[in-house]
Amino acid sequence: MHAYRTQTCADLTAADVGKTVRLSGWVHRIRDHGGILFIDLRDTYGVTQVLCDPDSAAFADVEKVRAEYCIRIDGEVKARSPELVNAKLPTGEVEVFIREIEVLGASKELPLQVFGDQEYPEETRLKYRYLDLRREVMQKNMTLRSNVVKSMRQRMWDKGFREFQTPIITASSPEGARDFLVPSRLHPGKFYALPQAPQQFKQLIMVSGYDKYFQIAPCFRDEDPRADRSPTDFYQLDLEMSFVEQQDVFDTIQPVIGGVFEEFGGGRKVDQTWEQISYRDAALWYGTDKPDLRNPIKMQVVSDHFAGSGFAIFAKLLEQDGTQIRAIPAPTGGSRKFCDRMNAFAQQQGLPGMGYIFWRDQGEGMEAAGPLAKNIGPERTEAIRQQLGLGVGDAAFFLGGKPEAFESVAGRARTVIGEELGLVDKDRFAFAWIVDFPIYARDEETGKIDFEHNPFSMPQGGMDALSGDPLDVLGFQYDLACNGYELVSGAIRNHRPEIMFKAFEIAGYGADEVEKRFGGMVNAFQYGAPPHGGCAAGIDRIVMLLADEANIREVIMFPMNQRAEDLMMGAPSEPMNEQLRELRLRVLPPES
Amino acid sequence: MHAYRTQTCADLTAADVGKTVRLSGWVHRIRDHGGILFIDLRDTYGVTQVLCDPDSAAFADVEKVRAEYCIRIDGEVKARSPELVNAKLPTGEVEVFIREIEVLGASKELPLQVFGDQEYPEETRLKYRYLDLRREVMQKNMTLRSNVVKSMRQRMWDKGFREFQTPIITASSPEGARDFLVPSRLHPGKFYALPQAPQQFKQLIMVSGYDKYFQIAPCFRDEDPRADRSPTDFYQLDLEMSFVEQQDVFDTIQPVIGGVFEEFGGGRKVDQTWEQISYRDAALWYGTDKPDLRNPIKMQVVSDHFAGSGFAIFAKLLEQDGTQIRAIPAPTGGSRKFCDRMNAFAQQQGLPGMGYIFWRDQGEGMEAAGPLAKNIGPERTEAIRQQLGLGVGDAAFFLGGKPEAFESVAGRARTVIGEELGLVDKDRFAFAWIVDFPIYARDEETGKIDFEHNPFSMPQGGMDALSGDPLDVLGFQYDLACNGYELVSGAIRNHRPEIMFKAFEIAGYGADEVEKRFGGMVNAFQYGAPPHGGCAAGIDRIVMLLADEANIREVIMFPMNQRAEDLMMGAPSEPMNEQLRELRLRVLPPES
Repeated sequence: MHAYRTQTCADLTAADVGKTVRLSGWVHRIRDHGGILFIDLRDTYGVTQVLCDPDSAAFADVEKVRAEYCIRIDGEVKARSPELVNAKLPTGEVEVFIREIEVLGASKELPLQVFGDQEYPEETRLKYRYLDLRREVMQKNMTLRSNVVKSMRQRMWDKGFREFQTPIITASSPEGARDFLVPSRLHPGKFYALPQAPQQFKQLIMVSGYDKYFQIAPCFRDEDPRADRSPTDFYQLDLEMSFVEQQDVFDTIQPVIGGVFEEFGGGRKVDQTWEQISYRDAALWYGTDKPDLRNPIKMQVVSDHFAGSGFAIFAKLLEQDGTQIRAIPAPTGGSRKFCDRMNAFAQQQGLPGMGYIFWRDQGEGMEAAGPLAKNIGPERTEAIRQQLGLGVGDAAFFLGGKPEAFESVAGRARTVIGEELGLVDKDRFAFAWIVDFPIYARDEETGKIDFEHNPFSMPQGGMDALSGDPLDVLGFQYDLACNGYELVSGAIRNHRPEIMFKAFEIAGYGADEVEKRFGGMVNAFQYGAPPHGGCAAGIDRIVMLLADEANIREVIMFPMNQRAEDLMMGAPSEPMNEQLRELRLRVLPPES
Repeated sequence: MHAYRTQTCADLTAADVGKTVRLSGWVHRIRDHGGILFIDLRDTYGVTQVLCDPDSAAFADVEKVRAEYCIRIDGEVKARSPELVNAKLPTGEVEVFIREIEVLGASKELPLQVFGDQEYPEETRLKYRYLDLRREVMQKNMTLRSNVVKSMRQRMWDKGFREFQTPIITASSPEGARDFLVPSRLHPGKFYALPQAPQQFKQLIMVSGYDKYFQIAPCFRDEDPRADRSPTDFYQLDLEMSFVEQQDVFDTIQPVIGGVFEEFGGGRKVDQTWEQISYRDAALWYGTDKPDLRNPIKMQVVSDHFAGSGFAIFAKLLEQDGTQIRAIPAPTGGSRKFCDRMNAFAQQQGLPGMGYIFWRDQGEGMEAAGPLAKNIGPERTEAIRQQLGLGVGDAAFFLGGKPEAFESVAGRARTVIGEELGLVDKDRFAFAWIVDFPIYARDEETGKIDFEHNPFSMPQGGMDALSGDPLDVLGFQYDLACNGYELVSGAIRNHRPEIMFKAFEIAGYGADEVEKRFGGMVNAFQYGAPPHGGCAAGIDRIVMLLADEANIREVIMFPMNQRAEDLMMGAPSEPMNEQLRELRLRVLPPES
C-alpha cells in the first residue's frame, strides 16, 4: 500500500464499497453526531466523508484532530444509506470508516477559516496566504489561471509560434514606467534593470530571423499600486511576428484571446466580430480608449443644434475655436430624478454640471422636459432627439467645451448612466480594436512634442508622414478593449533606422540619445531588419475578467499588498551589511 | 496578395511551377553565373533559390543587394532542369524568377558572416547576437530548446501537474549562492531579492493544498561564471508533490527526463533503468557525486592486498586510521607508456603519483609488470587481478590515503583513463540517481557542523536520527547524474517544524535565526503541512547535452558573457542620478 494514499479524496464511488483504502488530506470540517465523529476530508481534488465511532481503536486519536490538520487515514469504504447520499458530492454515495489515523501535520489555531465564506481583511489573507489559498474560490481561481495560461500556450503553438525565453536581468527597456534596478556585484556602481517588457528582445528575435515568437513573459514595473495592476511584476502573453501588417496581427491574436474567453467564460457571450474603432472615434463615442462596449451608449457631436441657440452658455462656448457640444444618450433615463442625479455626478467630477433633456408623455403626447429644452426651443430639441434616436422615457445629457477637457468625465458619466439604467449586459465579453493612435502629443504645460505611447511604432505613411504636423501622425498602433479594460496592446514596429531616428528627432531626442537608450536595437536594425509587429496581452487581467474578480490579487498566487510588500515572506527587508559592502552601496538616511 | 509573402522559403515544390509567388527573407548567398544573379533566399523555415537575369526590370535593384539584406521578391516559379535539381533542399526542384524586388531592410557590412562555418570570438558573437542567431546551428539549438521546454510542459501536464507562477521580486530564498538584490523605492533602504529558486514558494504551494506543482522557473544566482553555468539567471523544470516518498518522485520525473532524451536525443541510447547509487558508493566507485556512467570503470577498495605487504608506502599508510587503498581498473590500458602517462597526470593534479600494475603476455603466459607488482609479490598481485576482473592487456592504478584527500583526483583519473582508452560510449545518455546524501558535514577549518547541501531535506529516520552523530545522518535527498553532469536535484522535505528547528539547532542556528531567515515557510508548517518532496531539473544543461554543446551560451538566446555583461544591450550600466536619488542609494568609490 502506498505510504499516503491509495486514492484521492475525489475518487471513491459505490464501486469501491468493501475496499480498504488509504486517504490523505485536510480536515475540512469535523462534527460529532451522537458520539460518532464525522470528518470531511479534503484534498485539491475533492472531499470524502470519513467517520469514526467510539468502538474504533483509532477513536482517541481522531478525537484530537482539529480543522486543517493534515491527516492520513486507513479505513473501509461503506455505502451510505440511501437517505444520506449526498448527490452534490462525487463521493457522496460512500463514506470511509476509519481504522487507523496518522497526523501528518498538526495545525495551530487558525487565523483564517478555510471552511465557509467568512471574509477577512486583505492583510490577514496575504500574511496567511497558504490558508487563504486552500479556500474553494482561491483553488478555483488558481486552477483557472493555470488552465488559461496552458490554453494560450497551446493556441500559440498551434499557430506555428515558438516560445523563447528572453533575459530577465538585463538592460533598461523603457516602456514609460520606472525600472526596477539590480546592482551588479562584479561591476560596482553599475546596475542591471528588470525588463518592463521583453519589447527590445522580441524585436531582436525578429532581426535574428525567427518570425513567430511568443512568451508567457514576466514584466517588471516599479509602479504605484492599483486594483487592476500589480505593484511589482505581472505576466503578459507577449508575441511578435515578422513580415506582417496590422491586420495579420489581429487575425492571429483574435482566435487566441477569443478562444480563451469561449473556453473559460462559463457560457458568457463572446463577441465574434471585433470592430475596429479609431482612437479619435473611441474618445468621441465612449470618452476613453478602453470602452466598455457592453454599454450600448454611444456619444455624439451635437454642436450644430446649439450653435446660435437660446442656450447662451453653449452658444457662446461654440464661438471659441476647438469647442464642441456632445450628447450622451440615456435610453430609459427619462426622469427628472435620474437626470438630476447624473448632473450632480458631473459636478462631483469637477464639471459645472451636465445639461439634460428628457422626453415624457403625460397623456398629451411626447414632451421634451428640462431647462435646456426650454432654452433652445422645440425644433432644435426635436432635431436632437431624432439624431440620437431617442423617445418617450429616454434622456440625453450634454457636455461642452474643448473635448480634451471633458472627454474623460463624459466617459465616466456614460459608464455610470449605463450601469444605473441597467443597460450593461453583464453576461458578455465585448471586444473592440482601438486603432490609429497618434504617435505624438503636445505636453500641455511645456508645449513640447513627445511620444504619446511607445516610440517603437511605425508611423502610418512612413518617412513622408513625419515631414508634416507631428500631431497629425498616426501610428500602426492598437489596443484591444474588453469590458472597459485594455487587454492587449501592440503595434507594427518602426524597423527602419532612418525613420526611427527622424521620429525620435521630432520628439527632441538626438541620435546620441537614441544610441544610448536603444543602441542594441537600433544597431540591429542596420543589419537587414524585417518588417515586424506584435502585441502583448495582460494575463492577470484576462484571468480577472474570466474569474469575475475586481482585484488582481485574487488571481495571483502570492501577490504583493498595495504597499508592494510580501507580508508572508517579509519582503522587502533590510540587507545585510556584507551584501551592501559587496555591492559598494550605501543607503542614505531619509531626507529631512 | 499578402504584403510580404504568399509562401515561406521552405514551401515551394514542383507542384507550384507556373505560379506567381511572393517571398520574403534574407539574402543568404548571392552569386553571379554568366551574368545571371542567383540568390539563396533564407527564412527560418528554409531556403529557396531565386534568380534574376539582365533582361528583368528588377535587375538593377537586385544587383544592389548584399548578404543579409532582408528583401521581398515577386516572381514566377519555374522547374529547374533535372541536372540542377538540389535533392538536399525541399525546394530544390524549383527556382523563382524575380520580377520585382523590394529591400525591406538593408544591411551594413557584416561583422560576422551568417553563411558558412567561420568561427568568431565569443565577444563578437554576443555583441551581434542577432546575426549569430541567424546561423544554422544556432537556429537549430534555439528550436531544440523551445521544443524541449514544450515537451517537458506537456509531459508534466499529462501527469496531472499544474503550472503555477511564483514571485520573482520577493524575499531572499537562500540556496547557497549569492542573491541578486533589488532596492525598493517605496521602502527606501529595504531590498527585495530575486529567487535563487522557487524553493520556499513551491513548498508553500504544497501547504496551500495543491499537490502537484511544476514551473519552468527562472532562477537567479549572483555566481562567478563557468562554462556550464550562466552568471545571472537560468531555467529549471521545478516540481513539487505532496503525499509522496522518494521513490514516487523518481517514478514521476524519470519518464519526463528520459522521455525528453528519447525524443530529442537523435537516436543516441537512453538508459532505461536508472540505478540508485548511494552518495558514499558514488564517491568510492567514481570519485564524484555526478559520475559519467558511460565510462565503465568502477573503482574498488583493495586495502587488504596491501596491508602488511612489501610495498612499504601503502603498508605504512594503512596503519593510520581512516586510510584506504583504492584501485582504478583500466581495461586495455596495459602498456608502460600509458601507465606512466597516467602517473604523470596524477602528479599534475598534486598527488605524489599513482602506483600501477599492468598485465602482459610476452609469449610466456600472463605476466604482471610495474614496480608495484614486484614489491607485493605474485600472490597479492594475482589476488588483485582477480578482484578487479582484469587480464592480459589491462592495467590497474592505485591511490592511497584518507579517501577525502584523493577521491576527487581519483574521479578525474577515472575520467581521463576512460577517455584515453576509448572506453566511453559517446552515443549514450547514462543516468543514475545518487541518493542518501549526508545532511551535515564538518567544516575542515572551523570544525563546525553545517548543512552539507540544503537545510530543507528530511533526515532519514526523522527526529530520532537527529539525536545521534550528526555526521551519520543521511537525508532523503537525491541528484540525478547524466554523463558527468548533475541534471536534477531534489529531496523529500522536512515538513515538521519541530524536526526542522532541531536540524537547524545542530547546525548552530537558533530558533530566532530560523524564524528570521525562513519565517514564511516555518510558520506555514504549523498549519497542517503535508509531507512533500520534489526536485528541479536544469533546463539549460539538458539542452546543452542534447545539442552536444560544451558551453551553456550555445543554448541560451541572449546570454551574458563570462563577466556577466550583455554587450549587445549594454548591461549593466550606470544608473541615472535621479534613479539613485529615488532609491536613496549612493555608490561608494572603489576601495583604495
